[in-house]
Amino acid sequence: MNIAVLGHGTVGSGVVETIESKNKKLSDKTPDNSIDIKYILDLNDFPELSYCDKFTKDFQVILNDESVKVVVETIGGINPAFEYTMQAIQKGKSVVSSNKELVATKGFEILKAAEENNVNYFFEASVGGGIPIIRPISNCLAANKIDRVTGILNGTTNFIFSKMIDDKMSFEEALKLAQDNGYAEKDPTDDIEGFDAMRKICILSSLCYGHHIYPKEVYSEGISKIKNEDIYFANDLGFVIKLIADSQKIEDDKIQVITAPMLVDKHNQLANVNGVFNAVLVNGDATGEVLFYGKGAGKMPTASAVVADVLDCANHLKKRKNFGWGEHIDNFVADYLDRKSAFYLRAETENYQKSVEEIQQIFEGKCTISEEKNGQFAFITPIDTERNIENLKSKIKKSSIVAILRCLEENV
Amino acid sequence: MNIAVLGHGTVGSGVVETIESKNKKLSDKTPDNSIDIKYILDLNDFPELSYCDKFTKDFQVILNDESVKVVVETIGGINPAFEYTMQAIQKGKSVVSSNKELVATKGFEILKAAEENNVNYFFEASVGGGIPIIRPISNCLAANKIDRVTGILNGTTNFIFSKMIDDKMSFEEALKLAQDNGYAEKDPTDDIEGFDAMRKICILSSLCYGHHIYPKEVYSEGISKIKNEDIYFANDLGFVIKLIADSQKIEDDKIQVITAPMLVDKHNQLANVNGVFNAVLVNGDATGEVLFYGKGAGKMPTASAVVADVLDCANHLKKRKNFGWGEHIDNFVADYLDRKSAFYLRAETENYQKSVEEIQQIFEGKCTISEEKNGQFAFITPIDTERNIENLKSKIKKSSIVAILRCLEENV
Repeated sequence: MNIAVLGHGTVGSGVVETIESKNKKLSDKTPDNSIDIKYILDLNDFPELSYCDKFTKDFQVILNDESVKVVVETIGGINPAFEYTMQAIQKGKSVVSSNKELVATKGFEILKAAEENNVNYFFEASVGGGIPIIRPISNCLAANKIDRVTGILNGTTNFIFSKMIDDKMSFEEALKLAQDNGYAEKDPTDDIEGFDAMRKICILSSLCYGHHIYPKEVYSEGISKIKNEDIYFANDLGFVIKLIADSQKIEDDKIQVITAPMLVDKHNQLANVNGVFNAVLVNGDATGEVLFYGKGAGKMPTASAVVADVLDCANHLKKRKNFGWGEHIDNFVADYLDRKSAFYLRAETENYQKSVEEIQQIFEGKCTISEEKNGQFAFITPIDTERNIENLKSKIKKSSIVAILRCLEENV
Repeated sequence: MNIAVLGHGTVGSGVVETIESKNKKLSDKTPDNSIDIKYILDLNDFPELSYCDKFTKDFQVILNDESVKVVVETIGGINPAFEYTMQAIQKGKSVVSSNKELVATKGFEILKAAEENNVNYFFEASVGGGIPIIRPISNCLAANKIDRVTGILNGTTNFIFSKMIDDKMSFEEALKLAQDNGYAEKDPTDDIEGFDAMRKICILSSLCYGHHIYPKEVYSEGISKIKNEDIYFANDLGFVIKLIADSQKIEDDKIQVITAPMLVDKHNQLANVNGVFNAVLVNGDATGEVLFYGKGAGKMPTASAVVADVLDCANHLKKRKNFGWGEHIDNFVADYLDRKSAFYLRAETENYQKSVEEIQQIFEGKCTISEEKNGQFAFITPIDTERNIENLKSKIKKSSIVAILRCLEENV
């Protein structure tokens, strides 16, 4: 079977290397015992590579070659990835993608086109890198009604938090280290502002609840505002801080989705996910909680997920797999201000005792309050909506609130 | 599509209840939009059930009904499950099983028959209950060379250890509690002697390394000999004790497989798997370590895995999935006495100081030794084969060794 790889960046080159180096083993897993990369599309030349003769700059060559059955899209971004994907599908080619931005933004359109053209569109590598997650949810958990997906979906921010916790680095120091180690881009906005994790939770939510969820519908908060004081007080209160992407069904036709730094109870499985690792917790009505854990990014893990999808395409060239989700519906995503959780507030005070008294009065004695340190303290509110907490917060006069974060609630 | 369910015990009745209660949603996931249980085979009558008219005691009725495309086998044990499975396959029916004993003992024979008859034999529920593990390994990790699978595969023994650790119960008390809670059978031999976990690691090893591994080839040790002193000293040395099923590739054509209680470093992901939960750690050359975690048993989790397999069969009635492993090869499993690990030894002594000196002399100063408590202490040896450790152990004269356990090594 002939395939083409679009893009020869980190993931694309990993796909080519995987298929070249394991060709015999991989070929054995296809119906015609062959898997050949016929073309690689890239704007650059790579004359030093042994497979340099496979490169083309002209997508039309790939499109019009009927022997190419599967197109691997690792270009990233919306354009021209979307255009190329749709054209390939319309020509009867299956497409495998690692492009989370495209899947999150255009997934339904592409899946619909794939259905109409009786081909497959797979994207296991778009969430969790090499961790199996898309296929286990859609196949293995097919007899479950899923009502929650919660994950640590961005390795860069998780690495930064681990360094802030373990090595007491500041956010800026930890970010620089992540960049020096190649874990963070020069422009780290997508990671640290939560956009990367947000796109992934859009994909998982669409898959679990059956309707396309768009990135613009999901409230997303970054981690750059987290201070070492927050790490300290969170720890003191029994929590760690993680960038959490959380999506839960709150009614039959209503979900809450959010990406934000949250306090996670130290006993929660997600609290022990450190460094560049990712984890996804899925709650099914039959299985209860199931956790998937591993390296969420990286060239070879991600490439291996893409190649597994290519093999699946090879085995379903004539019969499309029943896979994907339905169209977007309005108001399916609830207002995040109505999301319920406990909240963490950090305050500055000149009189700890009086501040504590006032806070317990406002919150009816239901707060857990830390000791004072350097004129600051923190407390955990009872579970309530963000709307109500903001309202109660405005009543605090004897201390000044300098930080507010959500807690990850396990049973709301 | 018509199916038949063999056995109406815990799993079988769970399968029937799942398909009856979610029929609309499940039917939507099949090509002909239907999934109907036509027969249930059981020796007992269930006149009180709404679906009592589906019961039969005659397997021939099911076998000779051409409208039955998928047979679900939840009988357990080898006979008559094996016979029924082979007959169904020879009649062109796909078979889904939750029967780990059968898969571990006769898997290759059945898979070969399935291939010859162009039908599927699936058994996601045989390992890890509702945790997706068989399909993620065979599909999602298809581009990986797997060199290790390590798991906590038995919830009963893990529950017992959790109670011995958290509540300081004795083994006998914890076992009784497990029985009272329905986590352990009246005859708990299969669980506590490690046979259940051993069958599961046979299945995972066969899947990961491509050759059938038989239960009789795997050294298996139970947990009944573990004393509270071992829990205490293990904790003191930085470990927890877990029943570990471990399988690793040591050469191209050689693996080590074992099921035994082991000391697990507290920082290892498996150390935090508590109560009736299971976890499987898979190491692929591209992905690195991937962990799957969830409830490893129970009626509805296991039934949901069976039903997901039924849906997969429904979608592959005409085209068999490329799935399974090759035949057994001799001497593929290495002698467990050559398995390398550190070892934990607990000793009784009348002179702690002299005992410590002797042990460090014998092991060349490479042991980590606990403090003394009630005339006992414990130590961790350097990494070596069991054979050599037994030899060195016999040189110890100043204290008497009363317990010996393996440590789970992460990089041997």
